[in-house]
Amino acid sequence: MKKSFGPKTLLFPTPAWVIGTYDPAGKPNIMTVAWGGICCSSPPCVAISLRKATATYGYIVERKAFTVNVPSPHQVAQVDHAGMVSGRHEDKVAVLGLTATRSELVDAPYMAEFPMVLECRLLHTLEIGLHTQFVGEILDVKLDEAAIDGAGKPDLGRMGAVIFAPEQRAYFGLGEPLGAAFSIGKTVAPLGRKQPDQE
Amino acid sequence: MKKSFGPKTLLFPTPAWVIGTYDPAGKPNIMTVAWGGICCSSPPCVAISLRKATATYGYIVERKAFTVNVPSPHQVAQVDHAGMVSGRHEDKVAVLGLTATRSELVDAPYMAEFPMVLECRLLHTLEIGLHTQFVGEILDVKLDEAAIDGAGKPDLGRMGAVIFAPEQRAYFGLGEPLGAAFSIGKTVAPLGRKQPDQE
Repeated sequence: MKKSFGPKTLLFPTPAWVIGTYDPAGKPNIMTVAWGGICCSSPPCVAISLRKATATYGYIVERKAFTVNVPSPHQVAQVDHAGMVSGRHEDKVAVLGLTATRSELVDAPYMAEFPMVLECRLLHTLEIGLHTQFVGEILDVKLDEAAIDGAGKPDLGRMGAVIFAPEQRAYFGLGEPLGAAFSIGKTVAPLGRKQPDQE
Repeated sequence: MKKSFGPKTLLFPTPAWVIGTYDPAGKPNIMTVAWGGICCSSPPCVAISLRKATATYGYIVERKAFTVNVPSPHQVAQVDHAGMVSGRHEDKVAVLGLTATRSELVDAPYMAEFPMVLECRLLHTLEIGLHTQFVGEILDVKLDEAAIDGAGKPDLGRMGAVIFAPEQRAYFGLGEPLGAAFSIGKTVAPLGRKQPDQE
Protein backbone atom coordinates (compact mmCIF):
# COMPACT_ATOMS: atom_id res chain seq x y z
CA MET A 1 0.00 0.00 0.00
CA LYS A 2 1.54 3.27 -1.14
CA LYS A 3 1.27 6.55 0.73
CA SER A 4 0.63 9.77 -1.22
CA PHE A 5 2.96 12.71 -0.67
CA GLY A 6 1.21 15.03 -3.14
CA PRO A 7 2.59 17.08 -6.03
CA LYS A 8 6.21 17.57 -5.01
CA THR A 9 9.70 17.59 -6.48
CA LEU A 10 10.29 14.36 -4.60
CA LEU A 11 12.32 12.04 -6.80
CA PHE A 12 15.35 9.90 -5.97
CA PRO A 13 18.17 10.07 -6.85
CA THR A 14 19.05 13.56 -8.04
CA PRO A 15 22.60 14.80 -8.63
CA ALA A 16 24.45 17.70 -7.03
CA TRP A 17 26.44 19.47 -9.73
CA VAL A 18 28.34 22.73 -9.57
CA ILE A 19 27.67 25.09 -12.49
CA GLY A 20 30.52 27.37 -13.57
CA THR A 21 29.93 30.72 -15.33
CA TYR A 22 31.50 34.16 -15.81
CA ASP A 23 29.82 37.29 -14.49
CA PRO A 24 29.68 40.42 -16.72
CA ALA A 25 33.12 41.51 -15.46
CA GLY A 26 34.63 38.13 -16.31
CA LYS A 27 34.83 36.95 -12.71
CA PRO A 28 34.24 33.19 -12.28
CA ASN A 29 31.13 32.15 -10.35
CA ILE A 30 29.72 28.79 -9.25
CA MET A 31 26.31 27.56 -8.12
CA THR A 32 25.04 24.14 -7.11
CA VAL A 33 22.08 22.57 -8.90
CA ALA A 34 20.13 19.37 -8.32
CA TRP A 35 17.57 19.90 -11.07
CA GLY A 36 19.10 18.46 -14.21
CA GLY A 37 20.16 15.48 -16.28
CA ILE A 38 21.29 14.28 -19.68
CA CYS A 39 18.57 15.10 -22.23
CA CYS A 40 19.89 14.00 -25.64
CA SER A 41 22.50 11.60 -27.03
CA SER A 42 23.06 13.33 -30.38
CA PRO A 43 24.00 16.08 -30.08
CA PRO A 44 25.09 15.17 -26.55
CA CYS A 45 23.20 17.54 -24.25
CA VAL A 46 22.65 18.16 -20.57
CA ALA A 47 19.75 20.13 -19.09
CA ILE A 48 19.92 22.21 -15.92
CA SER A 49 17.13 24.28 -14.39
CA LEU A 50 17.60 27.59 -12.59
CA ARG A 51 15.42 30.24 -11.03
CA LYS A 52 15.61 33.64 -12.71
CA ALA A 53 16.56 35.12 -9.31
CA THR A 54 19.95 33.41 -9.35
CA ALA A 55 23.07 35.20 -10.54
CA THR A 56 23.98 32.20 -12.69
CA TYR A 57 20.74 32.56 -14.66
CA GLY A 58 21.78 35.95 -16.00
CA TYR A 59 25.34 34.87 -16.65
CA ILE A 60 24.21 31.93 -18.82
CA VAL A 61 21.78 34.13 -20.75
CA GLU A 62 24.61 36.62 -21.39
CA ARG A 63 27.48 34.26 -22.23
CA LYS A 64 25.47 31.33 -23.64
CA ALA A 65 27.79 28.90 -21.91
CA PHE A 66 28.30 26.99 -18.66
CA THR A 67 30.31 24.15 -17.23
CA VAL A 68 29.02 21.23 -15.17
CA ASN A 69 31.52 20.36 -12.43
CA VAL A 70 30.94 16.95 -10.86
CA PRO A 71 32.19 16.53 -7.30
CA SER A 72 33.58 13.60 -5.34
CA PRO A 73 32.15 12.79 -1.88
CA HIS A 74 34.94 14.59 0.02
CA GLN A 75 33.80 17.83 -1.65
CA VAL A 76 30.23 17.67 -0.32
CA ALA A 77 30.61 20.65 2.04
CA GLN A 78 31.90 22.84 -0.80
CA VAL A 79 29.01 21.70 -2.96
CA ASP A 80 26.49 22.52 -0.25
CA HIS A 81 28.05 25.92 0.42
CA ALA A 82 27.88 26.85 -3.26
CA GLY A 83 24.14 26.15 -3.14
CA MET A 84 23.38 28.37 -0.16
CA VAL A 85 24.79 31.78 -1.01
CA SER A 86 24.61 33.95 -4.12
CA GLY A 87 27.65 34.95 -6.14
CA ARG A 88 26.32 38.48 -5.78
CA HIS A 89 27.20 38.41 -2.07
CA GLU A 90 30.28 36.23 -1.93
CA ASP A 91 33.19 35.25 -4.18
CA LYS A 92 32.42 31.55 -3.84
CA VAL A 93 35.37 30.40 -5.93
CA ALA A 94 37.78 32.23 -3.60
CA VAL A 95 35.98 31.33 -0.37
CA LEU A 96 35.99 27.64 -1.30
CA GLY A 97 39.62 27.73 -2.44
CA LEU A 98 38.83 26.56 -5.97
CA THR A 99 40.92 27.16 -9.09
CA ALA A 100 38.92 28.58 -11.99
CA THR A 101 40.28 27.50 -15.36
CA ARG A 102 39.14 29.16 -18.59
CA SER A 103 37.54 26.69 -20.99
CA GLU A 104 39.10 26.74 -24.45
CA LEU A 105 35.78 25.65 -25.96
CA VAL A 106 33.11 27.81 -24.31
CA ASP A 107 32.91 31.18 -22.55
CA ALA A 108 32.81 29.71 -19.03
CA PRO A 109 35.29 28.52 -16.41
CA TYR A 110 35.59 25.07 -14.86
CA MET A 111 37.00 24.30 -11.44
CA ALA A 112 40.23 22.31 -11.52
CA GLU A 113 39.55 20.56 -8.20
CA PHE A 114 36.44 18.68 -9.34
CA PRO A 115 37.25 15.29 -10.90
CA MET A 116 34.83 15.61 -13.86
CA VAL A 117 33.82 18.64 -15.90
CA LEU A 118 31.57 19.17 -18.90
CA GLU A 119 31.94 22.23 -21.13
CA CYS A 120 28.58 23.27 -22.58
CA ARG A 121 27.25 25.87 -24.97
CA LEU A 122 23.64 26.98 -24.64
CA LEU A 123 21.40 25.34 -27.23
CA HIS A 124 17.82 25.81 -25.95
CA THR A 125 16.04 27.74 -23.21
CA LEU A 126 12.69 26.44 -21.99
CA GLU A 127 10.46 28.45 -19.67
CA ILE A 128 8.61 26.02 -17.42
CA GLY A 129 7.49 27.93 -14.32
CA LEU A 130 9.57 28.97 -11.33
CA HIS A 131 12.52 27.42 -13.14
CA THR A 132 13.95 28.01 -16.57
CA GLN A 133 15.61 25.04 -18.21
CA PHE A 134 18.86 25.52 -20.10
CA VAL A 135 19.87 22.79 -22.53
CA GLY A 136 23.60 22.80 -23.09
CA GLU A 137 25.43 20.94 -25.85
CA ILE A 138 28.33 19.03 -24.31
CA LEU A 139 31.46 19.98 -26.30
CA ASP A 140 33.89 18.06 -24.13
CA VAL A 141 34.05 15.95 -20.98
CA LYS A 142 37.27 16.09 -18.99
CA LEU A 143 38.23 13.68 -16.22
CA ASP A 144 40.95 13.57 -13.59
CA GLU A 145 43.00 10.46 -12.93
CA ALA A 146 40.80 10.03 -9.85
CA ALA A 147 37.86 9.24 -12.16
CA ILE A 148 39.67 6.94 -14.62
CA ASP A 149 40.37 3.23 -14.20
CA GLY A 150 43.61 1.38 -14.98
CA ALA A 151 42.54 0.89 -18.60
CA GLY A 152 42.00 4.63 -19.13
CA LYS A 153 38.20 4.46 -18.97
CA PRO A 154 35.75 6.55 -16.91
CA ASP A 155 35.05 4.88 -13.58
CA LEU A 156 32.22 6.15 -11.40
CA GLY A 157 33.09 3.61 -8.73
CA ARG A 158 36.55 5.08 -8.36
CA MET A 159 35.38 8.70 -8.45
CA GLY A 160 32.40 8.30 -6.16
CA ALA A 161 29.41 10.64 -6.26
CA VAL A 162 27.41 13.19 -4.33
CA ILE A 163 23.75 12.22 -4.53
CA PHE A 164 21.07 14.62 -3.34
CA ALA A 165 17.75 13.56 -1.82
CA PRO A 166 15.13 16.30 -2.38
CA GLU A 167 12.61 16.90 0.44
CA GLN A 168 14.81 14.81 2.74
CA ARG A 169 17.49 17.49 2.22
CA ALA A 170 20.39 15.09 2.58
CA TYR A 171 23.43 13.95 0.61
CA PHE A 172 24.53 10.37 0.08
CA GLY A 173 27.61 8.75 -1.42
CA LEU A 174 27.90 6.04 -4.03
CA GLY A 175 27.49 2.37 -3.13
CA GLU A 176 28.66 -0.95 -4.52
CA PRO A 177 28.44 -2.08 -8.17
CA LEU A 178 25.06 -3.72 -8.88
CA GLY A 179 25.85 -5.20 -12.28
CA ALA A 180 26.62 -4.56 -15.94
CA ALA A 181 24.07 -2.55 -17.92
CA PHE A 182 22.58 -4.06 -21.10
CA SER A 183 23.57 -7.41 -19.63
CA ILE A 184 22.26 -8.22 -16.14
CA GLY A 185 18.69 -7.89 -17.46
CA LYS A 186 19.14 -11.09 -19.45
CA THR A 187 19.30 -13.04 -16.18
CA VAL A 188 15.60 -12.29 -15.49
CA ALA A 189 14.32 -13.61 -18.78
CA PRO A 190 15.57 -14.04 -22.34
CA LEU A 191 15.00 -10.94 -24.46
CA GLY A 192 11.85 -10.90 -26.60
CA ARG A 193 13.89 -9.30 -29.36
CA LYS A 194 16.89 -7.06 -29.03
CA GLN A 195 16.54 -3.36 -29.69
CA PRO A 196 19.27 -0.74 -29.85
CA ASP A 197 20.20 0.71 -26.46
CA GLN A 198 17.49 2.88 -24.99
CA GLU A 199 20.00 5.64 -24.52
CA MET B 1 45.83 17.36 -15.39
CA LYS B 2 42.50 16.43 -16.93
CA LYS B 3 42.07 14.05 -19.85
CA SER B 4 39.57 14.91 -22.62
CA PHE B 5 36.97 12.31 -23.57
CA GLY B 6 35.30 14.45 -26.26
CA PRO B 7 31.64 15.37 -26.78
CA LYS B 8 29.84 12.50 -25.06
CA THR B 9 26.86 11.83 -22.83
CA LEU B 10 29.34 11.05 -20.09
CA LEU B 11 28.01 12.46 -16.84
CA PHE B 12 27.83 10.91 -13.37
CA PRO B 13 25.51 10.07 -11.72
CA THR B 14 22.44 9.45 -13.85
CA PRO B 15 19.32 7.65 -12.63
CA ALA B 16 17.65 4.49 -13.93
CA TRP B 17 13.90 5.02 -13.90
CA VAL B 18 11.14 2.88 -15.35
CA ILE B 19 8.54 4.79 -17.37
CA GLY B 20 4.98 3.43 -17.35
CA THR B 21 2.53 4.07 -20.20
CA TYR B 22 -0.51 2.53 -21.93
CA ASP B 23 -0.35 1.38 -25.53
CA PRO B 24 -3.26 2.22 -27.91
CA ALA B 25 -5.13 -0.93 -26.79
CA GLY B 26 -4.76 0.02 -23.12
CA LYS B 27 -2.08 -2.56 -22.37
CA PRO B 28 0.51 -1.39 -19.81
CA ASN B 29 4.07 -0.96 -21.03
CA ILE B 30 7.34 -0.01 -19.34
CA MET B 31 10.70 1.27 -20.52
CA THR B 32 13.87 2.22 -18.66
CA VAL B 33 15.37 5.69 -19.06
CA ALA B 34 18.57 7.26 -17.77
CA TRP B 35 18.17 10.61 -19.51
CA GLY B 36 16.10 12.76 -17.17
CA GLY B 37 15.78 14.77 -13.99
CA ILE B 38 13.67 17.23 -12.06
CA CYS B 39 13.30 20.41 -14.14
CA CYS B 40 11.03 22.77 -12.19
CA SER B 41 9.88 23.24 -8.57
CA SER B 42 6.61 25.07 -9.32
CA PRO B 43 4.79 23.47 -10.94
CA PRO B 44 6.76 20.39 -9.86
CA CYS B 45 8.02 18.82 -13.07
CA VAL B 46 10.27 16.01 -14.22
CA ALA B 47 11.87 15.74 -17.67
CA ILE B 48 12.60 12.49 -19.48
CA SER B 49 14.10 12.08 -22.93
CA LEU B 50 13.20 9.37 -25.43
CA ARG B 51 14.06 8.43 -28.98
CA LYS B 52 11.13 8.58 -31.41
CA ALA B 53 11.85 4.93 -32.30
CA THR B 54 10.70 3.73 -28.88
CA ALA B 55 7.17 2.45 -28.31
CA THR B 56 6.90 4.64 -25.21
CA TYR B 57 7.45 7.79 -27.29
CA GLY B 58 4.24 7.22 -29.22
CA TYR B 59 2.28 6.21 -26.14
CA ILE B 60 3.18 9.44 -24.33
CA VAL B 61 2.30 11.55 -27.38
CA GLU B 62 -1.07 9.77 -27.56
CA ARG B 63 -2.08 9.67 -23.88
CA LYS B 64 -0.19 12.75 -22.68
CA ALA B 65 0.76 10.97 -19.48
CA PHE B 66 3.43 8.73 -17.96
CA THR B 67 4.59 7.44 -14.60
CA VAL B 68 8.13 7.41 -13.26
CA ASN B 69 8.76 4.21 -11.29
CA VAL B 70 11.84 4.35 -9.08
CA PRO B 71 13.47 1.02 -8.29
CA SER B 72 15.37 -0.34 -5.31
CA PRO B 73 18.75 -2.06 -5.83
CA HIS B 74 17.29 -5.58 -5.73
CA GLN B 75 15.26 -4.71 -8.84
CA VAL B 76 18.28 -3.83 -10.99
CA ALA B 77 17.94 -6.84 -13.32
CA GLN B 78 14.28 -5.96 -14.02
CA VAL B 79 15.29 -2.36 -14.69
CA ASP B 80 18.01 -3.45 -17.10
CA HIS B 81 15.72 -5.89 -18.90
CA ALA B 82 13.09 -3.18 -19.43
CA GLY B 83 15.77 -1.08 -21.14
CA MET B 84 16.86 -3.74 -23.61
CA VAL B 85 13.73 -4.89 -25.38
CA SER B 86 10.82 -3.02 -26.93
CA GLY B 87 7.26 -3.33 -25.71
CA ARG B 88 6.40 -4.05 -29.35
CA HIS B 89 8.17 -7.41 -29.07
CA GLU B 90 7.55 -8.46 -25.49
CA ASP B 91 4.96 -7.89 -22.77
CA LYS B 92 7.57 -6.60 -20.33
CA VAL B 93 5.14 -6.11 -17.47
CA ALA B 94 4.16 -9.79 -17.65
CA VAL B 95 7.67 -11.13 -18.30
CA LEU B 96 9.03 -9.23 -15.29
CA GLY B 97 6.12 -10.25 -13.07
CA LEU B 98 5.05 -6.68 -12.33
CA THR B 99 1.61 -5.50 -11.25
CA ALA B 100 0.29 -2.62 -13.35
CA THR B 101 -2.00 -0.32 -11.37
CA ARG B 102 -4.14 2.30 -13.10
CA SER B 103 -3.35 5.81 -11.91
CA GLU B 104 -6.40 7.73 -10.71
CA LEU B 105 -4.76 11.00 -11.74
CA VAL B 106 -3.32 10.42 -15.20
CA ASP B 107 -3.88 8.06 -18.12
CA ALA B 108 -0.93 5.80 -17.32
CA PRO B 109 -0.18 2.81 -15.12
CA TYR B 110 2.38 2.51 -12.35
CA MET B 111 4.03 -0.69 -11.18
CA ALA B 112 3.09 -1.69 -7.63
CA GLU B 113 6.43 -3.41 -6.95
CA PHE B 114 8.57 -0.27 -7.25
CA PRO B 115 8.92 1.61 -3.94
CA MET B 116 8.41 5.11 -5.42
CA VAL B 117 6.17 6.29 -8.23
CA LEU B 118 5.43 9.68 -9.77
CA GLU B 119 2.25 10.29 -11.77
CA CYS B 120 2.82 12.85 -14.50
CA ARG B 121 0.81 14.63 -17.16
CA LEU B 122 2.57 15.89 -20.24
CA LEU B 123 3.21 19.64 -20.10
CA HIS B 124 5.88 20.36 -22.74
CA THR B 125 7.59 18.54 -25.59
CA LEU B 126 11.02 19.74 -26.72
CA GLU B 127 12.71 18.41 -29.85
CA ILE B 128 16.45 18.37 -29.22
CA GLY B 129 18.00 15.92 -31.68
CA LEU B 130 18.04 12.14 -31.51
CA HIS B 131 15.98 12.51 -28.32
CA THR B 132 12.72 14.29 -27.62
CA GLN B 133 12.30 15.65 -24.14
CA PHE B 134 8.95 15.29 -22.39
CA VAL B 135 8.31 17.54 -19.40
CA GLY B 136 5.72 16.03 -17.09
CA GLU B 137 3.94 17.82 -14.29
CA ILE B 138 4.14 15.69 -11.15
CA LEU B 139 0.59 15.34 -9.84
CA ASP B 140 1.45 12.94 -7.02
CA VAL B 141 4.38 11.05 -5.54
CA LYS B 142 3.58 7.73 -3.86
CA LEU B 143 5.95 5.79 -1.62
CA ASP B 144 5.99 2.33 -0.11
CA GLU B 145 6.79 1.71 3.52
CA ALA B 146 10.21 0.57 2.27
CA ALA B 147 10.97 4.19 1.30
CA ILE B 148 9.61 5.91 4.43
CA ASP B 149 11.38 6.40 7.75
CA GLY B 150 9.95 5.90 11.25
CA ALA B 151 8.66 9.48 11.31
CA GLY B 152 6.70 8.99 8.08
CA LYS B 153 9.14 10.92 5.89
CA PRO B 154 10.76 9.91 2.57
CA ASP B 155 14.08 8.16 3.17
CA LEU B 156 16.43 7.53 0.27
CA GLY B 157 18.85 5.75 2.58
CA ARG B 158 16.24 3.19 3.47
CA MET B 159 14.98 2.74 -0.08
CA GLY B 160 18.37 2.61 -1.77
CA ALA B 161 18.86 3.51 -5.41
CA VAL B 162 19.89 2.24 -8.81
CA ILE B 163 22.45 4.63 -10.25
CA PHE B 164 23.52 4.33 -13.88
CA ALA B 165 26.97 5.21 -15.18
CA PRO B 166 26.78 6.16 -18.88
CA GLU B 167 29.67 5.06 -21.13
CA GLN B 168 30.84 2.75 -18.34
CA ARG B 169 27.52 0.90 -18.79
CA ALA B 170 27.27 -0.14 -15.16
CA TYR B 171 24.85 0.19 -12.25
CA PHE B 172 25.75 1.16 -8.69
CA GLY B 173 23.86 1.24 -5.43
CA LEU B 174 23.53 4.01 -2.88
CA GLY B 175 26.24 4.67 -0.30
CA GLU B 176 26.46 6.20 3.13
CA PRO B 177 24.96 9.57 4.21
CA LEU B 178 27.41 12.40 3.53
CA GLY B 179 25.65 15.15 5.47
CA ALA B 180 22.64 17.44 5.75
CA ALA B 181 21.91 19.71 2.80
CA PHE B 182 21.66 23.49 3.34
CA SER B 183 23.71 22.86 6.47
CA ILE B 184 27.04 21.04 6.00
CA GLY B 185 28.20 23.85 3.70
CA LYS B 186 28.42 26.21 6.68
CA THR B 187 31.34 24.16 8.02
CA VAL B 188 33.56 25.29 5.11
CA ALA B 189 33.03 29.01 5.66
CA PRO B 190 30.35 31.30 7.07
CA LEU B 191 27.78 32.29 4.46
CA GLY B 192 28.33 35.64 2.71
CA ARG B 193 24.60 36.24 2.89
CA LYS B 194 21.82 33.71 2.92
CA GLN B 195 19.74 33.23 -0.17
CA PRO B 196 16.60 31.14 -0.59
CA ASP B 197 17.34 27.50 -1.46
CA GLN B 198 18.70 27.05 -4.94
CA GLU B 199 16.00 24.51 -5.63
